[in-house]
Amino acid sequence: MTSHKPVGPVDTTKVPRYAGLATFAKLPQIDQVPDYDIAIVGVPFDGGTSYRPGARFGPAAVREASRLLRPGYHVELDVEPVNEAQVVDAGDLACTPYDIAQAVKEIEEQALPLMATDKRVIAIGGDHTIALPMLRALTAVHGPVALLHFDAHLDTWDTYFDQPVTHGTIFRRAFEEGLLVEDSSMHIGIRGPVYDRADFLRDHEFGFQIIRCSDLDVTGVPAAIQQVTERLGNTPVYVSIDIDVLDPSYAPGTGTPEMGGLHSRELLALLRGLNGINIVGADVVEVAPAYDHADITSIAAATVVFDLLGLMVNRSKGASFAGERDLERSAV
Amino acid sequence: MTSHKPVGPVDTTKVPRYAGLATFAKLPQIDQVPDYDIAIVGVPFDGGTSYRPGARFGPAAVREASRLLRPGYHVELDVEPVNEAQVVDAGDLACTPYDIAQAVKEIEEQALPLMATDKRVIAIGGDHTIALPMLRALTAVHGPVALLHFDAHLDTWDTYFDQPVTHGTIFRRAFEEGLLVEDSSMHIGIRGPVYDRADFLRDHEFGFQIIRCSDLDVTGVPAAIQQVTERLGNTPVYVSIDIDVLDPSYAPGTGTPEMGGLHSRELLALLRGLNGINIVGADVVEVAPAYDHADITSIAAATVVFDLLGLMVNRSKGASFAGERDLERSAV
Amino acid sequence: MTSHKPVGPVDTTKVPRYAGLATFAKLPQIDQVPDYDIAIVGVPFDGGTSYRPGARFGPAAVREASRLLRPGYHVELDVEPVNEAQVVDAGDLACTPYDIAQAVKEIEEQALPLMATDKRVIAIGGDHTIALPMLRALTAVHGPVALLHFDAHLDTWDTYFDQPVTHGTIFRRAFEEGLLVEDSSMHIGIRGPVYDRADFLRDHEFGFQIIRCSDLDVTGVPAAIQQVTERLGNTPVYVSIDIDVLDPSYAPGTGTPEMGGLHSRELLALLRGLNGINIVGADVVEVAPAYDHADITSIAAATVVFDLLGLMVNRSKGASFAGERDLERSAV
Amino acid sequence: MTSHKPVGPVDTTKVPRYAGLATFAKLPQIDQVPDYDIAIVGVPFDGGTSYRPGARFGPAAVREASRLLRPGYHVELDVEPVNEAQVVDAGDLACTPYDIAQAVKEIEEQALPLMATDKRVIAIGGDHTIALPMLRALTAVHGPVALLHFDAHLDTWDTYFDQPVTHGTIFRRAFEEGLLVEDSSMHIGIRGPVYDRADFLRDHEFGFQIIRCSDLDVTGVPAAIQQVTERLGNTPVYVSIDIDVLDPSYAPGTGTPEMGGLHSRELLALLRGLNGINIVGADVVEVAPAYDHADITSIAAATVVFDLLGLMVNRSKGASFAGERDLERSAV
Amino acid sequence: MTSHKPVGPVDTTKVPRYAGLATFAKLPQIDQVPDYDIAIVGVPFDGGTSYRPGARFGPAAVREASRLLRPGYHVELDVEPVNEAQVVDAGDLACTPYDIAQAVKEIEEQALPLMATDKRVIAIGGDHTIALPMLRALTAVHGPVALLHFDAHLDTWDTYFDQPVTHGTIFRRAFEEGLLVEDSSMHIGIRGPVYDRADFLRDHEFGFQIIRCSDLDVTGVPAAIQQVTERLGNTPVYVSIDIDVLDPSYAPGTGTPEMGGLHSRELLALLRGLNGINIVGADVVEVAPAYDHADITSIAAATVVFDLLGLMVNRSKGASFAGERDLERSAV
Amino acid sequence: MTSHKPVGPVDTTKVPRYAGLATFAKLPQIDQVPDYDIAIVGVPFDGGTSYRPGARFGPAAVREASRLLRPGYHVELDVEPVNEAQVVDAGDLACTPYDIAQAVKEIEEQALPLMATDKRVIAIGGDHTIALPMLRALTAVHGPVALLHFDAHLDTWDTYFDQPVTHGTIFRRAFEEGLLVEDSSMHIGIRGPVYDRADFLRDHEFGFQIIRCSDLDVTGVPAAIQQVTERLGNTPVYVSIDIDVLDPSYAPGTGTPEMGGLHSRELLALLRGLNGINIVGADVVEVAPAYDHADITSIAAATVVFDLLGLMVNRSKGASFAGERDLERSAV
Repeated sequence: MTSHKPVGPVDTTKVPRYAGLATFAKLPQIDQVPDYDIAIVGVPFDGGTSYRPGARFGPAAVREASRLLRPGYHVELDVEPVNEAQVVDAGDLACTPYDIAQAVKEIEEQALPLMATDKRVIAIGGDHTIALPMLRALTAVHGPVALLHFDAHLDTWDTYFDQPVTHGTIFRRAFEEGLLVEDSSMHIGIRGPVYDRADFLRDHEFGFQIIRCSDLDVTGVPAAIQQVTERLGNTPVYVSIDIDVLDPSYAPGTGTPEMGGLHSRELLALLRGLNGINIVGADVVEVAPAYDHADITSIAAATVVFDLLGLMVNRSKGASFAGERDLERSAV
Repeated sequence: MTSHKPVGPVDTTKVPRYAGLATFAKLPQIDQVPDYDIAIVGVPFDGGTSYRPGARFGPAAVREASRLLRPGYHVELDVEPVNEAQVVDAGDLACTPYDIAQAVKEIEEQALPLMATDKRVIAIGGDHTIALPMLRALTAVHGPVALLHFDAHLDTWDTYFDQPVTHGTIFRRAFEEGLLVEDSSMHIGIRGPVYDRADFLRDHEFGFQIIRCSDLDVTGVPAAIQQVTERLGNTPVYVSIDIDVLDPSYAPGTGTPEMGGLHSRELLALLRGLNGINIVGADVVEVAPAYDHADITSIAAATVVFDLLGLMVNRSKGASFAGERDLERSAV
Repeated sequence: MTSHKPVGPVDTTKVPRYAGLATFAKLPQIDQVPDYDIAIVGVPFDGGTSYRPGARFGPAAVREASRLLRPGYHVELDVEPVNEAQVVDAGDLACTPYDIAQAVKEIEEQALPLMATDKRVIAIGGDHTIALPMLRALTAVHGPVALLHFDAHLDTWDTYFDQPVTHGTIFRRAFEEGLLVEDSSMHIGIRGPVYDRADFLRDHEFGFQIIRCSDLDVTGVPAAIQQVTERLGNTPVYVSIDIDVLDPSYAPGTGTPEMGGLHSRELLALLRGLNGINIVGADVVEVAPAYDHADITSIAAATVVFDLLGLMVNRSKGASFAGERDLERSAV
Repeated sequence: MTSHKPVGPVDTTKVPRYAGLATFAKLPQIDQVPDYDIAIVGVPFDGGTSYRPGARFGPAAVREASRLLRPGYHVELDVEPVNEAQVVDAGDLACTPYDIAQAVKEIEEQALPLMATDKRVIAIGGDHTIALPMLRALTAVHGPVALLHFDAHLDTWDTYFDQPVTHGTIFRRAFEEGLLVEDSSMHIGIRGPVYDRADFLRDHEFGFQIIRCSDLDVTGVPAAIQQVTERLGNTPVYVSIDIDVLDPSYAPGTGTPEMGGLHSRELLALLRGLNGINIVGADVVEVAPAYDHADITSIAAATVVFDLLGLMVNRSKGASFAGERDLERSAV
Repeated sequence: MTSHKPVGPVDTTKVPRYAGLATFAKLPQIDQVPDYDIAIVGVPFDGGTSYRPGARFGPAAVREASRLLRPGYHVELDVEPVNEAQVVDAGDLACTPYDIAQAVKEIEEQALPLMATDKRVIAIGGDHTIALPMLRALTAVHGPVALLHFDAHLDTWDTYFDQPVTHGTIFRRAFEEGLLVEDSSMHIGIRGPVYDRADFLRDHEFGFQIIRCSDLDVTGVPAAIQQVTERLGNTPVYVSIDIDVLDPSYAPGTGTPEMGGLHSRELLALLRGLNGINIVGADVVEVAPAYDHADITSIAAATVVFDLLGLMVNRSKGASFAGERDLERSAV
Repeated sequence: MTSHKPVGPVDTTKVPRYAGLATFAKLPQIDQVPDYDIAIVGVPFDGGTSYRPGARFGPAAVREASRLLRPGYHVELDVEPVNEAQVVDAGDLACTPYDIAQAVKEIEEQALPLMATDKRVIAIGGDHTIALPMLRALTAVHGPVALLHFDAHLDTWDTYFDQPVTHGTIFRRAFEEGLLVEDSSMHIGIRGPVYDRADFLRDHEFGFQIIRCSDLDVTGVPAAIQQVTERLGNTPVYVSIDIDVLDPSYAPGTGTPEMGGLHSRELLALLRGLNGINIVGADVVEVAPAYDHADITSIAAATVVFDLLGLMVNRSKGASFAGERDLERSAV
C-alpha cells in the first residue's frame, strides 16, 4: 500500500459526472499523485483483429462509460477500492497501429515500468493481442502465472495468414514462451463451433481446462466458482476478460460476437466468486465502440474493471472467499 | 367499477395497430368515456436527472410502443383488463421543464383529481422525480402507503447540488414527509457500487428492505415473491418501477444504466407474483428514448404498465396470489 | 448422403471471413456442386407482416452475419456438418412482394424441387407466412408432419383484414389443410397477452401443446426438452423458428417483438436437446434487419440455422439424444 | 373559410411541445371543432413498396416530429396558417396492409368525404401508392388536375410483378384514367439511372415535363420556379412530394434513396416559389422511420406539410407569387 | 501573447490520435503550462433546454471528436493557431444541473477568472443558456460587445413557463442588461416559422439585424460576409454559434433541429470571411450527442471551434480580411 | 469490347432487388461469362487506416447497396453501361489483414491478371492503401498514369509510425516509384487544416494541382471541370475516389471524416464532366460501414462506381466531353 492517504476521484456532488476529463472513474492521473497501488492503463491497439476492427477506441469509450461508476463502496465485495488503495489512470500506452510485432514490443516496454511486485496494472484493450505483451511484462516481474481467461473463443489457434501473434493466437504463444504455470489455466465462457475438432485437443495440451457456457447451463455458477478457485488456489493469476464472453445482447460492441454467451449477472457473480484469488494482473479487451449501443458494452467493461479493482484491493487485505460467503447466505 | 360497459381499445382487426393516434394501447382518451376505473397518465418531466436526460420523451415513446400490445386477455394473470374495467388514457400532465419545485407542485395538483378511493392511476415518466408528487397526491387519498420499488438504485440519497428533490432523493423525502407506512417498503433489483458505505445504513433507517440482484442469484424469484408478499400483506402499495431495474441489454434507453440487472422474465415473474397485492398507485419511469434501440425499452415499459393494469383489475376482483398458483404448478 | 466428398466452405485461413460473396457460411452455391444433402435457401417475402415490415431483407442479412460462423466442428452436437454432408446455398426463391396468394404459390413451386426424401431444406425468411408454402411442399414429399414451433405468438389466428394467409394465421391454415400430424405439434416460447381468451382454446383444438416462457421459469429447459422429445418421438418434424421467440434484447431486429422471451442460451439448449429428432424441414424467420443492432439478431439467426444443420446431419447418422447426454453430464 | 374563429394548436408556453398526444403540430382533432378548412390525414399503407418497406409508420413519425413546429407565423410565406384557417388532424385512414386493390379502394372511400370544393386535404404517407386513391377522390370533386411531382423517380412505370398499382406506377395509372390535365404535369428532382432508355420517352407521352437535379445544377432554383409557375398557371394542382426527392443525407428514412438529390433549402425554396398556385390537394409520402436518424426525415416531412398548409391558406387569400417577390429582393 | 514558446498538442506521429486523454485537439491542460492566450472550456449545462435535452454531454463529445483535428496549419486562414499562441484546455466549468439561476451564477463566476483583456475563452456548450453568463463575464472585462449569432432561432423570446433565463431567451436578457453594443448585433441562419409574427418586430427593437437562410439563397455568402464585416467593423464581438444553424443533415445531434439550415461549407466560408474581426469571446453550443450519428455533429463543432481559434490568433497578429482575399481570388 | 452480347444483371422485374446474392448491381460473376470488358473487384483491406478502421467491410456493404441501382440507362451520360459492355463482378481480392507489405503484394498480384490494355478494373476498397498496388498493377499494363484524386486529404504524407505505406502516404510512394505522369495529377476536394504548412509545398513538388473545397465555393463546378479536363487531356488516368471527399453528412460511414466536403451533386457533376477522359482504372475507397447510417455512404459509393462504369464505356465509344455539353445547355 502506498503510504499516503489515497487521492480519490473527483467529488461528484460538486462536479457532475458528465463534466470534466474522462479519466477512469474520474480518478487522478498517474502524475498527479506521489505513488500508486493499482494503475488502469489503456492499450488502444486493434491490429490483431480478424473480423470487426475498432477496439482501438476501446480505452476512450470505457473511460467515458466509467463516468457512471459510483466508486465509493463495492457492497458485493465489501470493499472501498479507491479509499483503501491509491488507484490511478495511467493514460494509454502509445503503439503503432501498423505493425503487430512492433506494437507488441512497444506495449511490453511501456507496461513493464508500471508493474512491480506490489503494484498492479489493469489494461483496457484494444483487441486481445495486447494480452501477450502484458503477460510478457507481468512474468518478468512475477514469473509464470496461471491464466484465467473469460472468452467466447479459445484464442489458442496457431497462426492466421502466417501471422503468429493475433487476437486469436496469443495464448498458444504464451504457453510456448513458458509464461503460464503448467496445467493451471482455464477458459470460461467458451461456445460456438470451431474450425477443427482438433482445436480442443490441442488446447488441452497447452494446459487449459474449459468451462463452456453449456456447462454453466448444467452445473450453474457456484460449481464453476468452486472449480476455478480450487484449480487456481494461491497461484499468481492473470485474469483476461474478452468482453465477448458476454452474450451479444449484453456486449454488441465487440469484434467477434458469438450467440449464447454469459449473462451480465453471471459474469459478475463469477468474478465476485474469485474474492481472495491472487490476481497479479488483468485486462478487459475487445470493446469495439462503433458497434456498441447506448454504451452498454463500455459500461459493462468499466464495471468489470471496477470489480477487478475490488478483488485486487481485497486480496491485498487478505479477504476470504466470496464463494464461501454466498454459500452461507444461500443456506440461510 | 364504473357502471357502464367499458369502452375498449380500437379494434385492431379493422384499424392496423400502426394507424391512428397513439393513446396507450389504443385505449379511449379520458374525455371520450363517461367515467373510468384506471387512468394511464404521462408525466413528461426529466429535470431531476443526474446523468443522461431525455425521459421527458418517455410518455410519447411508451405510448407509441404500446401499439404492439394485444390487450384482450392476459393469460398469466387470467384477466381481461380492458374488458373488466374502464381504462383510459388521461394524456400528459403539463409541467415546466425548468424548475423542479414548481414542476413537482404542478404534477401533484394535476394528479390528485385523477385519483379517488376507487380510481387508480398509473403514471409513465419522466424521471423518477415524479414519484414524489404522485406519492403526495396518492397519500392525500389513501394515507401512507408501502413503497414497492424496482430499481438499480436506492433513490434515498439526501441532496445533489443542494437540491432536495431529484431523481435520486425522492424516497428519502417521502419517508421524511411521512408518506410511507413504517417498515413496509422494499427495494428490488438494487446493484452496483455506491458513493458511501453508509448509504445502506441510512436506507435501512428509512424502513426499507433490499432484495439485491445478487440475492436473486442465490435465492431465486419465488423466494423473493414470498418475501415481498409477506411484507406487504394487505397494506396499500405504491409500485414504482424504474426501468433501469432491468439490465442495460433489456433497457438501454434509460438515464443511469447499471450492469447486472434483472432479466425481463424475472421482472415479469416478480410482478405477476404480486397478484392480490393491494396496489393503489404505480409508476413506470426513466425511459429515455434517445438511448433506446428498436424501441425495446419502451416496449418493456408498455408491457409492464399493462401488467400493472392486470394486477389492479384482478385485485378489484379479489384474485388469489399467483405466487401460490405458480408453486402449485411447480409441484405438478 | 451424396456420393462425392462434400465441397466445404471457403478456407478462412486464406480468404478473410469478411471477403468474398456472402453465401451462407461461405458454402458453395447450389450450381457449384454435383449434388447436395441439405440446401439453405432464402425466402425474402414479408407481405404477410402485420406490424414492422422488413423481413424481406432477412436472407441477405443472415447470410452476411453467417460470415462469422466457424463451421468446421459443432462441439455441442459433436458433428462436422459441412464435412459430413454436402451443404449448399441455394440462393433465394423469387416471389412477388405484392400479392400474398401469388407469392405463396411461387414459393411452394420453387421450394418443391429442392426437396426430396433424402434432401433437406432450411429456409431463411422472410416473415412467417413463408412457412405455409414450405409446409405444403414438404408434405408433398413426406406427408403430414409434426410442427415444432418456436415463437412468441401462436400464429393460429383466423384472418386479418379478411386475409386468410398472413404471418399470424399460417398454422391454422396448415391444420385445416391436413398438413400437420394430429395432436403432435407444439409451440415453445409463447408469451404476452392476446386479443381473446378463446385464442388458446382454439389453438388446443388444432392439436397444439404450448410451452410458455412462464412454464420455462417454473420447470426449466431439461423438462421442456423431455416433453418435446416424448411428444415428437420419431414423427417427421418441421421446425419453424420465429426469431421473436428470443427476448427483444437478443433479437431486436424483428417485426413484432414481445418482452419476456427466451434467452439465447435457452434457445440453443432447447435445440441441442432435439438431437435425434427426425427433422425433415425447417425455417428461421422474421429477421427484420432495419431494426437490428450490430447484427445481433442476424447472428442469432445464422447460428440457429447452423444448429439445425447439425441436427439434420446427426439424425442422418443416427445420433443419440443430447437430452440424455446432458442428464448424464448433470449427474456427474 | 369556416365561419368560426379557428381553434389553434395547444399553447406551447403552457404545455411543453413534447407533452400530450401527437396530433399534427398539436392541432385539434377533426371531431373537436365544428368545421374545418384543411385536414391533415395519415395514410399508413406501404404495400406498394418495391424495396425498403416501413412507410406505414410514416404518419406516426411525422406527427411526432411535428411537435417541433412553431406554427404561429410563417415568415417566408407571410401567413399565419393555423390562425387564418381551421386546420385539423383527421387521424389516419384505415386500410388493409395485405391487398393493394382493396387498400386503394378503402383509401379513396375514406378520403372522399374529407374533401370538398372548399376543403383541402394533405395526406401523409405511406408509400407513393396512396397518391392514386387520393387523386381519384380529388378529381371526383375537382375534375382532372395537374400533377406537380417532387421525386427522385418518375413513378410512371407500367407494372412490377404483374401488379398495376404500386409505388412506382401510380402516375401512369392516373394518366390512363384521365385524372391528369393534359400536358400540364411536371416531375422535379428526377435523377439516377433507369431500367430502360424508353422510360423517359413514355413519360413524355403521358404529358410530363421533367426538371432533373442536374438541370437545377445548371439553371438554378429561380428558373425552375418560373418554369413551374408558367406551366401550371391557374390549373388546379395536386402536389405530391416523395421525400426521396431530397438527397439521402437529408432524408435517409425512405425506401428507395437515390444519391444526388435536392438540398432541403432547395426544396423549401421551390415550394415557397409556388405561392399563389392553385393547390387543391397534396401528399408527402415515403417516410420510412426505421431508416431515419434523429428524426431528420420526419422533421423535413413535417416542415414540408406545414409549408403546403401555408401555400393553401395564402391561395385562399389571393396571395401574389413568391417567385416575383424573391426576384425583387434579389434585384435589390 | 504569452512569453513562452507555446506547448503544442500531443505529437500524433508518436501517439495515435485515438490514444490518450481527450483534451481539445490533444492540447495541454491549463495547469500544464505557465500561461495561456486562449482557453477552450466546456460548460456542460443543459437545464435551459426546451425540447431534446442532452447538450450536457456536448463538451465530452466535442473533445472526443477533436481528436481528428490536424491543428498544425490552417490553410484557409493561413495561420498556425497552436504554434502562434498558447492554447489550452481549461476543462469544464462545474455547475448544478438542477437550478438555472444557480448554474448561471456558477458559470459566470468560474468563467471570469479565465478571461482578461488579452486572454480569450471559447466555450463549448451545453445549451444556449450558457451564453448569458459568458456574456456577463466577458462584458465585465471588455464592456458591451456586439453579438454575432449563428442560429436557426432568434433566442430573443421573453420567458418560457415563467422562466426568464432559458436557451431561447438569453439574448433578450443580454439586451436588457446592457451587455450588447447598440444596433450592432446580428443573427445569421434564422429560419422556420415562429410562434408569433411580432417576434421579429421585437427582435429588431433589441438591435439585431437578421440574415435568414432564405436571404443566403438569394444573395449568397460573399454578400453576407460583407454585410457582417461592415456592421461589426472593429467592435468587440462575441460569436455565439448554435450548431443548429447547420441543417439537420449536417448536425442531427442537437436539441431543436430545423429543416433548411446552412451547409457546412457555408458556415465555414462565413466564419473564414470574418478574418480580422475583433472577436473577444465565443461559444459553440447545443451539441446533443445522443442524437448524433458517427459523431458528425461533434466533428462539425470541433472544426468550428478550431476556426474560431484561427480567427482569434490572426486578429492578434493584425490579419487582413479574408473576405477581401476571397474576392481577389475570385477575380483571378 | 467482348465479342459476345453482354450478359446483363438479374432481371429485377422477375427477381426483386433485395433477393439473391449481392453481386455488384446484380451483375454476373466473373466465371459466369466467357469474357469481360470491365471488372468490379472488392479489395477488403483496412490495415493502413490511421483513425476509424472498418473499410474491410466496404466491398460487402457497397455490393449490398448496389442492389438499388437501376443499371439499364444512365441518362446523364447517355449510356447503357451494362448493355454496351460486358461488366462483371470479380469478387474480392484475398489478402492478409495483418501485414501491410504482404497485403499490398497480394493485391497487386491478384489485380494484375484482371487488367489488360482493353480491360478495365474498378476497385472497391478497403482503405486508401489499396490504391498503391492498384497503381503498380495498372502501370505495368499502361505505363505511368495521371492521378485524378478526390479526397479530403492529400495522402502524400511521408510515413506514420515509420510505416511507408499507409492510407495517408500512398501517393507520395506512387510519385517516388514513377507511377505518375509528371505534373499531371490533381487533388479535388481537399480541405481542413494539416499538421504542417510544408505539406502543401511538398505536395506541389510531387506534381499535383489542388482544387480545394473553398476553391469550388468561389469558382464553381464548371470551372473545376474545365481545369481538370484541360490538365488531363488524353493522358491515361487513374481516378481514385476517397468517399470522404463528400461532406460527413453525405458520407458518415468513413474513417477520417472532415467537415466541409463536397455535396453529392457536386461530386456527380464533377464526374459526369469527365466524359471523354481516358480513364484506365479507378477505385472508390474508405467506406467504413460501421459508421454508416441507412446505407447512405454505401449507396453513394455504389452510385459513383456506376458513374465510373458509364464513363469508361463512353470513352470506349469515343464520347464527347460532358463539360462541353453542360456549358451549351447552360447557355440556352
